[in-house]
Amino acid sequence: MLTHINESGRAKMVDVGEKGETLRIATARGRITMLPETFERIMNGGVKKGDVLAVAQVAGIMGAKRTSDLVPMCHPIFLTGVDMTFTPDEAHSVIEIEAVAKTIGRTGVEMEALSAVTTAALTIYDMVKAMDRTMVIEDIRLVQKSGGKSGDFVLAEE
Amino acid sequence: MLTHINESGRAKMVDVGEKGETLRIATARGRITMLPETFERIMNGGVKKGDVLAVAQVAGIMGAKRTSDLVPMCHPIFLTGVDMTFTPDEAHSVIEIEAVAKTIGRTGVEMEALSAVTTAALTIYDMVKAMDRTMVIEDIRLVQKSGGKSGDFVLAEE
Amino acid sequence: MLTHINESGRAKMVDVGEKGETLRIATARGRITMLPETFERIMNGGVKKGDVLAVAQVAGIMGAKRTSDLVPMCHPIFLTGVDMTFTPDEAHSVIEIEAVAKTIGRTGVEMEALSAVTTAALTIYDMVKAMDRTMVIEDIRLVQKSGGKSGDFVLAEE
Amino acid sequence: MLTHINESGRAKMVDVGEKGETLRIATARGRITMLPETFERIMNGGVKKGDVLAVAQVAGIMGAKRTSDLVPMCHPIFLTGVDMTFTPDEAHSVIEIEAVAKTIGRTGVEMEALSAVTTAALTIYDMVKAMDRTMVIEDIRLVQKSGGKSGDFVLAEE
Amino acid sequence: MLTHINESGRAKMVDVGEKGETLRIATARGRITMLPETFERIMNGGVKKGDVLAVAQVAGIMGAKRTSDLVPMCHPIFLTGVDMTFTPDEAHSVIEIEAVAKTIGRTGVEMEALSAVTTAALTIYDMVKAMDRTMVIEDIRLVQKSGGKSGDFVLAEE
Amino acid sequence: MLTHINESGRAKMVDVGEKGETLRIATARGRITMLPETFERIMNGGVKKGDVLAVAQVAGIMGAKRTSDLVPMCHPIFLTGVDMTFTPDEAHSVIEIEAVAKTIGRTGVEMEALSAVTTAALTIYDMVKAMDRTMVIEDIRLVQKSGGKSGDFVLAEE
Repeated sequence: MLTHINESGRAKMVDVGEKGETLRIATARGRITMLPETFERIMNGGVKKGDVLAVAQVAGIMGAKRTSDLVPMCHPIFLTGVDMTFTPDEAHSVIEIEAVAKTIGRTGVEMEALSAVTTAALTIYDMVKAMDRTMVIEDIRLVQKSGGKSGDFVLAEE
Repeated sequence: MLTHINESGRAKMVDVGEKGETLRIATARGRITMLPETFERIMNGGVKKGDVLAVAQVAGIMGAKRTSDLVPMCHPIFLTGVDMTFTPDEAHSVIEIEAVAKTIGRTGVEMEALSAVTTAALTIYDMVKAMDRTMVIEDIRLVQKSGGKSGDFVLAEE
Repeated sequence: MLTHINESGRAKMVDVGEKGETLRIATARGRITMLPETFERIMNGGVKKGDVLAVAQVAGIMGAKRTSDLVPMCHPIFLTGVDMTFTPDEAHSVIEIEAVAKTIGRTGVEMEALSAVTTAALTIYDMVKAMDRTMVIEDIRLVQKSGGKSGDFVLAEE
Repeated sequence: MLTHINESGRAKMVDVGEKGETLRIATARGRITMLPETFERIMNGGVKKGDVLAVAQVAGIMGAKRTSDLVPMCHPIFLTGVDMTFTPDEAHSVIEIEAVAKTIGRTGVEMEALSAVTTAALTIYDMVKAMDRTMVIEDIRLVQKSGGKSGDFVLAEE
Repeated sequence: MLTHINESGRAKMVDVGEKGETLRIATARGRITMLPETFERIMNGGVKKGDVLAVAQVAGIMGAKRTSDLVPMCHPIFLTGVDMTFTPDEAHSVIEIEAVAKTIGRTGVEMEALSAVTTAALTIYDMVKAMDRTMVIEDIRLVQKSGGKSGDFVLAEE
Repeated sequence: MLTHINESGRAKMVDVGEKGETLRIATARGRITMLPETFERIMNGGVKKGDVLAVAQVAGIMGAKRTSDLVPMCHPIFLTGVDMTFTPDEAHSVIEIEAVAKTIGRTGVEMEALSAVTTAALTIYDMVKAMDRTMVIEDIRLVQKSGGKSGDFVLAEE
């Protein structure tokens, strides 16, 4: 049975009280693809370059902090650090988004890292949607994770 | 220049005071792909079938309501309705997610529909992540939109 | 079938876009019962009399504003006014709580009034729980409602 | 004087820094009473049985996490687990609600358990209020508590 | 008597249901003063110039949206637009902050504009506090307001 | 370089995982100045004296708890205690505001204390703004801080 399901077959917030407090790090990635002119506008469109990405950076970090407000069975968590990186890929009109979340606690921070990526992607989308409604948010995934009983994980990517 | 950028090249919340109050509807879609055994567990794993999806349904609807809290330049909005549909695709171990958001207001509800989809996807991820860390959230996109000055939009999908 | 259930048997936020914008008022009541010494302490226990009730007043009003954050299928609402009254009943060591919520909108404010009452009751509980763990929050109910298509309602109370 | 009142007779958030970090568990209960036809509809009314209770389950767990946002003098807390149980009592058209909250921390989780119960009750109310405005939320109380300096507590119930 | 005080002498959320929906604009200003080296670091300290101000811009706009969550008697509001301007004054090591908030509604947006300014100031403070604990947030005031029954207002500034 | 800026020159939430958990206390102060008649009304204007300050007290404490929601790079924190003091200065029609925040954790609570002061000041402003639009929130500053690697700090005030 799934750990998040109680004896009545309903959802619960799993008890993590038995777990030890360890350093836990998770890295998530995703991307947003767009039209070439949209990409160009994000990279060069304003007076101060890259402002869309600065807003997405802030939104992603705040999104990580809101994870347990959004995802019903997530534990509230004391995040000790969050960082984000945006890697523009001009050839494909894509912005790659990466978030790294850290805590010292009883549960992992995979959801916080993933939530940072989706929030950042939605923020980019929002700021340029007036000129491009065909953008797609893609490939949101956990790429790495360390700490905790279940051990380390690295996504096999080709 | 992007509408979300002010004269100093910084982000602003666009003034929509001039826009009329009209019925606005947006439909967004996305999907989460997983291992066959994870898919099987979501569909049949608990005492009450489909409970994971019931939680994701609630989370998605609440996520739509939190959009302007999460996406910095989004306007607060009076959502008049939100509905979600989950379509399991057993052949590909995929759950398709669709959200429809409606309002009568001065701005569209694309972001609310998209936010419902990402929040629901994150919620599914969270509830089964203990057994599958290779899940991917994919293809989050606006598929339809009506109302507002910019007119209707239907995504051309092959 | 329940209005909050969609064709798949899952919860949705009911579409109220068709409803007219009318003045809507709802009054809810409830009470918290406690030991006589707890009652005495709330009424006379601090330097500034009645401070516990002042905090409960603020909490109740803020609780009304958070209703759509808490109750999944509730619509976000523009509350135009909220007021609360606390009526101490010394004979029974009870504090009666009443909340009146108002809006001009497409949905009623019953949930906002009820949420104000429960939040105020929880706040009283919290502030005196160190001396009394036998308190009970009781009889939370809608006593009156006006506006909207479904017409007016007055609870028949004996 | 009440612990939540400072020297000026005003409310404060009590300093718990001296308290030790211990396992703390609290169980709260309450109930919602309704018309027989409302009860029947909740239990059998949708395509997927019991969906109203699934939504209430999610809302209750999320409500526990929002406690310190709602109750002004409550400390923010790292909840390590929350579970809820709904026990339908057909004879009386009542749904009994129980919440168990756990933490390892410096303050108890009574308010979190109580808040889970009231939020779940409000959610049930909201989803069926269109057919029954006479529902009453009753008997919200702490039934058990363990951990912390003040020791264990079990409510004497007849 | 104050409009925010009810007949029992307690706070209430004033009923604005009688007020008309009009365009309302409010402009607030404030400043943060700091050591010259702190000022220099904010303006030139990072790889991307002015990043501290970009974060403060986002925080201020989000702070405007959170006003009714923070200020107990504030009405929830549909903000139609928010913009912020930061004016560095090198001679005095001061950053001037201005926020303009707009709505079409029944209540003014003074608090939203003021809240944007304080949140932006706190954000600047937070990001450089490691190097300067003597910063002061000053002179937070409403400088202009239009719309609503009470008419227009312009602060007389020498 | 600023600690809050990553290698790309963008904002990050600083990693505090290496820092020890120590008792941390911060005291912040500020004031709100107003017309003499406004001051008089706050102090004597309602049936229950000082109600405006009771609301500001609650708002300030809740504002401290919302700090990491408002200030983008702030870490979520387990506040162990918050207290506020309002000192009316009739001669200058000023209300002095002081907040003390405490935690046992890896980061300081300066921002929480400052946020309590600004939120309390905004709340006072809101409740009397109908009679006085010339109020000014002034001199928000950290006056004392203890705990943590950077050592103690006391603001030199003349």
